Amino acid sequence: MEKFEVTILGCGCAKPTSRHFPSSQIVNVRDKLYLVDCGEGCQMQICRAHLSYNKINHVFISHLHGDHCLGLVPLISTMELNDRTQPLHIYAPAMFETIFRAMTDFFCHNISFDVIFHGIDTTQTNVIFEDRSVMVTTIPLSHRVPCCGFLFEEKPLLPHILREMIDFYHIPFSQINNIKAGADWVTDDGEVIPHERLTIPAAPPRRYAYCSDTGYMPSLSASVAGVDFLYHEATYAEDYEASARIYAHSTARQAALVAREAGVKRLMIGHFSARYLDESVLLQEAVGIFPDTILAKELERIPL
Amino acid sequence: MEKFEVTILGCGCAKPTSRHFPSSQIVNVRDKLYLVDCGEGCQMQICRAHLSYNKINHVFISHLHGDHCLGLVPLISTMELNDRTQPLHIYAPAMFETIFRAMTDFFCHNISFDVIFHGIDTTQTNVIFEDRSVMVTTIPLSHRVPCCGFLFEEKPLLPHILREMIDFYHIPFSQINNIKAGADWVTDDGEVIPHERLTIPAAPPRRYAYCSDTGYMPSLSASVAGVDFLYHEATYAEDYEASARIYAHSTARQAALVAREAGVKRLMIGHFSARYLDESVLLQEAVGIFPDTILAKELERIPL
Repeated sequence: MEKFEVTILGCGCAKPTSRHFPSSQIVNVRDKLYLVDCGEGCQMQICRAHLSYNKINHVFISHLHGDHCLGLVPLISTMELNDRTQPLHIYAPAMFETIFRAMTDFFCHNISFDVIFHGIDTTQTNVIFEDRSVMVTTIPLSHRVPCCGFLFEEKPLLPHILREMIDFYHIPFSQINNIKAGADWVTDDGEVIPHERLTIPAAPPRRYAYCSDTGYMPSLSASVAGVDFLYHEATYAEDYEASARIYAHSTARQAALVAREAGVKRLMIGHFSARYLDESVLLQEAVGIFPDTILAKELERIPL
Repeated sequence: MEKFEVTILGCGCAKPTSRHFPSSQIVNVRDKLYLVDCGEGCQMQICRAHLSYNKINHVFISHLHGDHCLGLVPLISTMELNDRTQPLHIYAPAMFETIFRAMTDFFCHNISFDVIFHGIDTTQTNVIFEDRSVMVTTIPLSHRVPCCGFLFEEKPLLPHILREMIDFYHIPFSQINNIKAGADWVTDDGEVIPHERLTIPAAPPRRYAYCSDTGYMPSLSASVAGVDFLYHEATYAEDYEASARIYAHSTARQAALVAREAGVKRLMIGHFSARYLDESVLLQEAVGIFPDTILAKELERIPL
């Protein structure tokens, strides 16, 4: 199976604790790394996770609170020290560009690579990135400032060829890509062998949705319906539901309600309030609604 | 003895590693905390060291490389979240103010306290802060950008009163402060009791010098002559002396030469290059020149 996994770099909230880093994670799709949010210290966590800065070419920033983006300039400084050459693409709410450029102008004097800024509209569902392997779409969220999540959708893979059938029909190597792409095979006798008999389908494309930060949004379940893996913030337990409403965050129960309504396969909750020394209370609350829930944890790597 | 101690928050160099945070430390003088440099992640380290943000009223920044100051805005964001009210004083090279204000304007919308910026001249030896307990003086250093160290000098304490002598001469409580301040005592018989017989001197004032980042500066030994504790950067071992010269850093041997020439009591080396997985090579090199050398280590607390 092609690689598609998520590594948590930080899953704390804005208030620092001795246990959590602020929001940041790496989505690895077929060995290309996508950085999703980049709170303070994300570059140290990238080191600790034994991931390579050089494989990161795209950074997605959900919103402009410092705990989701203040690790970006330090990371770019390090890329500069490492003599990076390939371009770096930043996808963030458009109003970030001016201060971002001012910071890199001040702190990164000798950037040896292009930093390409893509302003995103957090209120729309738009495809903001696409290559052969993956498509990334914004997911509007409901926070105190413009904010969106990101849906990573794997591109379908071509079916696998059945070597023994190819041998049996003496099909030349040159035809294999055509058959994978859907061509049938016609034997010398004129017999048509449907391509479905010559191949087995690849695994179905997988989807990962990152949703942080957001108040409870029942409508979100439509955007993330049926995804293989959902990261949903769960800053508070239900007894702090009033705080969640004031600060436009979610409770663990609300995250689980979205997951259940959306029919996702698995849920990970994160963005934990600093008040919880032990997040098991959040896990219990979510599991009561949606059993396939896990707690985010720094440096954990979750294959889809 | 009144408290005077240094807590290392980070002692790595600009390139992140999984083991070190960038430069940052807390100098605690009589339970007031002075933050010296504030690399990325220093606020998490402050948590881990069980120190209180609220006791930090003064931040000293040696120079404007990101690894020495990019933790400042995240820290101020957190102070804002904590509803801080007391003013925060920043001492940094003057050219920092514009970008610093731009960053706090963008990331800290509701600062509930005054942030007072003091531009410092890194080329001069100036007293930049003074209160009843401590005086802080700049120490010009030799780096690729304007850079200075900081000398923390404890103010002398009044002598301790000898309780048994006070009782013996029936000296009233109201006179004790006068005697501490140097007044002699005259008995009813007209006998003069010198204040030295009524007191014992307080411990001599202690001095701590922070010197990072700098190329080898033999003249630095005059600025830090006889200090109780010297932190001197030692980015490289001697076999990278050429790199040290190019990047205006020091080798461990050079740090030890400064310590020996200055006749300091103890030396701590830090700002370790990311190339060293084990800094014992640096320690050995320094100890060969100046035996009372220790390696900096995150979260270590060193009393003077």
